[in-house]
Amino acid sequence: MKAEIIAIGDEILIGQTTDTNSGWMATELNALGIEVISISVVPDKGERITGALDKAAERSDLILITGGLGPTSDDITKNTLCDFFGTTLVRSDEVMKNIESLLGRRRVTINEKNIGQAFVPASCRVLMNLMGTAPGMWFESRGRIFVSMPGVPYEMKHIMSERVIPLLKESGIDSGIMHRNIMTYGMPEAHLAEMLQPFESELPDGIRLAYLPSSGIIKLRLTARYPDKAFSEAELTRQVEKLKSLIPGLIYSEKEESLEEVIGNMLRSKSMTISTAESCTGGNIGRMITSIPGSSDYFTGGVIAYSNDIKEKILGVRRETIIRHGAVSTECAAEMSEGVRRLTGSTISVATTGIAGPSGGTLLKPVGTVCIALTTGHGTVTKSFVYGTDRILNIRRFSLAALNMVRVHLKAL
Amino acid sequence: MKAEIIAIGDEILIGQTTDTNSGWMATELNALGIEVISISVVPDKGERITGALDKAAERSDLILITGGLGPTSDDITKNTLCDFFGTTLVRSDEVMKNIESLLGRRRVTINEKNIGQAFVPASCRVLMNLMGTAPGMWFESRGRIFVSMPGVPYEMKHIMSERVIPLLKESGIDSGIMHRNIMTYGMPEAHLAEMLQPFESELPDGIRLAYLPSSGIIKLRLTARYPDKAFSEAELTRQVEKLKSLIPGLIYSEKEESLEEVIGNMLRSKSMTISTAESCTGGNIGRMITSIPGSSDYFTGGVIAYSNDIKEKILGVRRETIIRHGAVSTECAAEMSEGVRRLTGSTISVATTGIAGPSGGTLLKPVGTVCIALTTGHGTVTKSFVYGTDRILNIRRFSLAALNMVRVHLKAL
Repeated sequence: MKAEIIAIGDEILIGQTTDTNSGWMATELNALGIEVISISVVPDKGERITGALDKAAERSDLILITGGLGPTSDDITKNTLCDFFGTTLVRSDEVMKNIESLLGRRRVTINEKNIGQAFVPASCRVLMNLMGTAPGMWFESRGRIFVSMPGVPYEMKHIMSERVIPLLKESGIDSGIMHRNIMTYGMPEAHLAEMLQPFESELPDGIRLAYLPSSGIIKLRLTARYPDKAFSEAELTRQVEKLKSLIPGLIYSEKEESLEEVIGNMLRSKSMTISTAESCTGGNIGRMITSIPGSSDYFTGGVIAYSNDIKEKILGVRRETIIRHGAVSTECAAEMSEGVRRLTGSTISVATTGIAGPSGGTLLKPVGTVCIALTTGHGTVTKSFVYGTDRILNIRRFSLAALNMVRVHLKAL
Repeated sequence: MKAEIIAIGDEILIGQTTDTNSGWMATELNALGIEVISISVVPDKGERITGALDKAAERSDLILITGGLGPTSDDITKNTLCDFFGTTLVRSDEVMKNIESLLGRRRVTINEKNIGQAFVPASCRVLMNLMGTAPGMWFESRGRIFVSMPGVPYEMKHIMSERVIPLLKESGIDSGIMHRNIMTYGMPEAHLAEMLQPFESELPDGIRLAYLPSSGIIKLRLTARYPDKAFSEAELTRQVEKLKSLIPGLIYSEKEESLEEVIGNMLRSKSMTISTAESCTGGNIGRMITSIPGSSDYFTGGVIAYSNDIKEKILGVRRETIIRHGAVSTECAAEMSEGVRRLTGSTISVATTGIAGPSGGTLLKPVGTVCIALTTGHGTVTKSFVYGTDRILNIRRFSLAALNMVRVHLKAL
């Protein structure tokens, strides 16, 4: 089954609202094995909406439409749908009751515009919306299914989850598309692709490999499209095993998760704790670790040692080390990491010191340089890397490099 | 001038990536007075890309294309564009030099796929991409402008800001549209809109007000569309003054900048320094402050005091305070803030302790509760707030609330 999504609304086209609905719907449809072949945003203009519906009916079995169902006069979707399907508006008592109940609870009096929302196209199946006054509408026409829903994200999600997806499941949809995600860190996309070129060219016809990079992390996605689910499953497992044997050091997870989630789970399962001493990353490693619910189980805390003074006073970095090697040095990183571990009593600790940029670099230590130290009960190891010139990207890359050092250490335990 | 945006990529259609590029581009184009009439997402399939380009050329003067320019074989945009424009790939020395310089910095060796990225369609104008290996490409054909850019957001934004927008301006696009941005913090969109309803209804025909919210910050954009620039300028100034008199406490800047930028400039101009003690925000305030280049001028550092032990041991919070009032209390926040100021010797300091969620709330202190303390030479002030239940949003809101307390204090000096 092929689907497409049409988002209606001037506010998206002028950039006032970012359309997050379509991505959410695409994920849900893909999980059902329905292939989304197009997402489009059209303005609140009748002929553009009709044009998009015509085009969609040519190529898709299921057309999901969001937006343009509000009570104000710029929302014209409902009338346009009536024209498109050759039907007229009729009053729905069920929808009216829902509107009365919703507005009654919010102590809002019902006005003419609200009453207008109780009128629905005669040929549609009404999808009740308990979260708002505009109902969803399910049409079957030209051998296609068309579903129109409000653009308010939580109303759309409610109608999708409670009405549309159950109805789609009932109608026996199952296309057999399956995915597997492999998370990698440590190699740029071009190099990874070169390395995996032979693997990719040997893939059977029913399997595709995609590279989905996002600042430092590359997600590899294998997609199987065999009619037989068990066959897809087996083939995907076989290819994942092959991938794992080809790039074992680069894979940090076989499911869609972040480095900080992986580390968190490792620390929790080993009953270990971690602390951080951050200079150039300015708190970002702490933020990443604590973005995970329950991170207080394993994160004791950290020191953001931005000035040299703090490095010395709080972390106990020796002035001599800074004078001799500079604040951006593996020596300084080591003393920072040892200092924070001593201070917090954590099992392990990690420290960063570097030059995020855009200025502050030297010939020997250019912008993008970072020194990272990891301290455990067995001592301290350090590494240094050179990344790019963009401050925000560098902070992200430095943080990932530090988290990956932690991951590699924990994995070897 | 009418524009449309085509985003290419299977990852958007399967919902793995949300297309935030199109919304950003739409905002930029609207600011230039260019109307965006369509946004569409198409898969990495040649015939679908060509179909979208054909359709776009029928109705739009400017077609912006993102995605599908990576070095891997699933990225087919470049070859498809060659077919579409009837041209062939030629090697660009300039692009090759950029790739060498980028990868050289990262100490990565250049491979065949990288070299492939130096090949560009012969008929295009190359838009150099200093942030990545895939250049932007500007085509003029059928009386239309087509621009293809990588889908990586920071690369696209770089090419748009540094190449495309200047070129569009050069090509004489000047619709006389003018904007003013007013940055507000502290009131939800619906309430702000209700408050500004009379102001909005009194706006003259040539001026429009738009609300551009992004998690806690609402940018108010006034747009003037008069043929006479000087008149637009004067009218905008008059309306901005009116706005300032209506919501003086909510406006933190009259230009597009972040709270952390505003605070940074205030601290620098007053030769003051700041330090942070973060519990529930886990380093995010430090990260925000240090995301600004040159923040080492005024940020000494901070302590991420995630565990109670660290609050006591490093920051000197009294155990009694935690026992009597709890770790999430204005009393604890005050001692944290005083502790970090003492430790770092900064002019002022700010501390957060709270419950980011999703669990850990109690009846009296529900998830979303945060206590914030600000310490200066004159003592400590505290505030507490209750936000929502989403962890990531709460961390952001807690951090903004803390930064805003700092701003209000600095402003009053």
